[in-house]
Amino acid sequence: MKNILQIGVGALGQQVLRYLLERDGIRITGVADLNPELTGRDIGSFFDKPHTGVTVSRSLEDAIHASDSKPEVAVITTVSSIEKLVPQIREAAEAGLHIVSTCEELIFPWNRHPGAAEKIDSICKEHGVACLGTGVNPGFLMDYLPSVFTSVCQNVDSIYVERVQDASERRVPFQQKIGAGLTHDQFEAKKEDGSLRHVGLPESVDLIAHAMNWPLDDNRETLEPVLAEKEISSGYKKIKKGEPSGVEQVGSGFVGGREVIRLRFRAAVGEERSYDRITVSGTPTITTEIEGGLNGDTATCAITVNAIRSVTKCSPGLKTMLNVPVPAFYSRV
Amino acid sequence: MKNILQIGVGALGQQVLRYLLERDGIRITGVADLNPELTGRDIGSFFDKPHTGVTVSRSLEDAIHASDSKPEVAVITTVSSIEKLVPQIREAAEAGLHIVSTCEELIFPWNRHPGAAEKIDSICKEHGVACLGTGVNPGFLMDYLPSVFTSVCQNVDSIYVERVQDASERRVPFQQKIGAGLTHDQFEAKKEDGSLRHVGLPESVDLIAHAMNWPLDDNRETLEPVLAEKEISSGYKKIKKGEPSGVEQVGSGFVGGREVIRLRFRAAVGEERSYDRITVSGTPTITTEIEGGLNGDTATCAITVNAIRSVTKCSPGLKTMLNVPVPAFYSRV
Repeated sequence: MKNILQIGVGALGQQVLRYLLERDGIRITGVADLNPELTGRDIGSFFDKPHTGVTVSRSLEDAIHASDSKPEVAVITTVSSIEKLVPQIREAAEAGLHIVSTCEELIFPWNRHPGAAEKIDSICKEHGVACLGTGVNPGFLMDYLPSVFTSVCQNVDSIYVERVQDASERRVPFQQKIGAGLTHDQFEAKKEDGSLRHVGLPESVDLIAHAMNWPLDDNRETLEPVLAEKEISSGYKKIKKGEPSGVEQVGSGFVGGREVIRLRFRAAVGEERSYDRITVSGTPTITTEIEGGLNGDTATCAITVNAIRSVTKCSPGLKTMLNVPVPAFYSRV
Repeated sequence: MKNILQIGVGALGQQVLRYLLERDGIRITGVADLNPELTGRDIGSFFDKPHTGVTVSRSLEDAIHASDSKPEVAVITTVSSIEKLVPQIREAAEAGLHIVSTCEELIFPWNRHPGAAEKIDSICKEHGVACLGTGVNPGFLMDYLPSVFTSVCQNVDSIYVERVQDASERRVPFQQKIGAGLTHDQFEAKKEDGSLRHVGLPESVDLIAHAMNWPLDDNRETLEPVLAEKEISSGYKKIKKGEPSGVEQVGSGFVGGREVIRLRFRAAVGEERSYDRITVSGTPTITTEIEGGLNGDTATCAITVNAIRSVTKCSPGLKTMLNVPVPAFYSRV
């Protein structure tokens, strides 16, 4: 039985909580969220389920003392920014907890946030715990999985990953988030304020480059609207020809001026089909496609739960997906 | 720089040797093979390459002393049988070498060969070295890779992997090995003497079951001829309708009488197309396909070389692909 403390009960945190509850072999000993409106709420109520007896505490300290059972791992689903994550990691590590987090910048922070990475690594080593950032993207599809495929390569020239999603069937907030139905000006404004951006492509580029031992001389990112080629009426609102139907983001890693890593993320209403596609060019060249593409929400929450066992089985410190045993699904029968 | 000792210079061993030679950051300090005809031969001669100064020794001990550089890892490409491998592992471990081997039965020996597995584990722990069995199949495609995909699953009901190969373009010995062009009687005779069998499906079933924590009540294997549906002339010889054009082997794992793992390996002349396909049924269901299928020889030799770094980075003992960090390709630039 693994005793788990969950920190952060936003939309993602709630789904992780539900997945934790569903699993055999996992006991939720405490839950923490800063939001005072959630304090004291039974976690069953988030899913219209019977009361569980586990309620939301306002702090990690309160959550630890909410149960007689000592937790072993903290699952942190709070922020995307690693700088904001550091104090949360410190508190969990000081309490002797291993950490799994969905923080996008934690996936591979050594290049972009070396100060925070070193701080986390030394905090974890001091307290004898391991810390891992994971998720479907970043954390699996566009970084770890391509790295796994290179295991059967004698040589790798370049890696190209595409994640293309038809957003027509997705929730309205998702369609809005990717800019479908905005005017050009609205799209540009949202691009400027950063609210359109999928976080994590540069981290994925860094993780692959580290796996391949490629010393990047550049790690770039672009973000452009997808423009409707004809009127689209499959989404939450009609989109005229030439108007934004979604977003395309490309992360690129260069060695000696050559683009050796290209990660293309495209989500738009009216796309012909959804798929995830990985091409490793080398000896041999490997092309593989996941039919229909992975469901991001399900996959992120599932890998977060599956990674719990991985962090309990490695040496102390800040880990990446490259350092831990494969966090495969594990049934408790 | 990693110093490597290569043990076994058969067809597979020679290709591994070539891959080792091609890699930056790897130095071959010695090579051993029991075959007296190979003793003293420069390894460059296997590939029509210039002399390397590294020659084949008749024993591991001679190979160790062939160079002033102390080797760190032994790559063993000798036998498929784990029982025959044990003394070779003992000798390497006593010399303080980590071990990577292509021995099929070593992939996951804990169920089928518990005595040998425990012996290897304790020998390795005694000498502070790690030992790993790897390859493309078993070792990657039908066991490790499906396990990797389950990392993003909240639940897994069953796993189905297909490896289908059109042998028309393959080497004549390969076409003969899979039984293409045999009569029914010849096929049955070869099936009986075991020379048709691809070794490793039960090991792959065991590895997946271990990853998923599924207590198998049965692990079965079938082997049948593929029969030509019409006359086939794409291979090395004409095959009449109804005659064997290749082999189909299925490995199955059962829990509570239900087939939860199904590994289908089919190699025949005149197959419509070659592909590797993985279906993880669960939450979510994931279907992925490698276009054209992986080239087995290239992939096995490459993952053997890539796994060298993995064994130097784990704790002592007998490991499986589930215990080691992903053996991604690593360039030495």
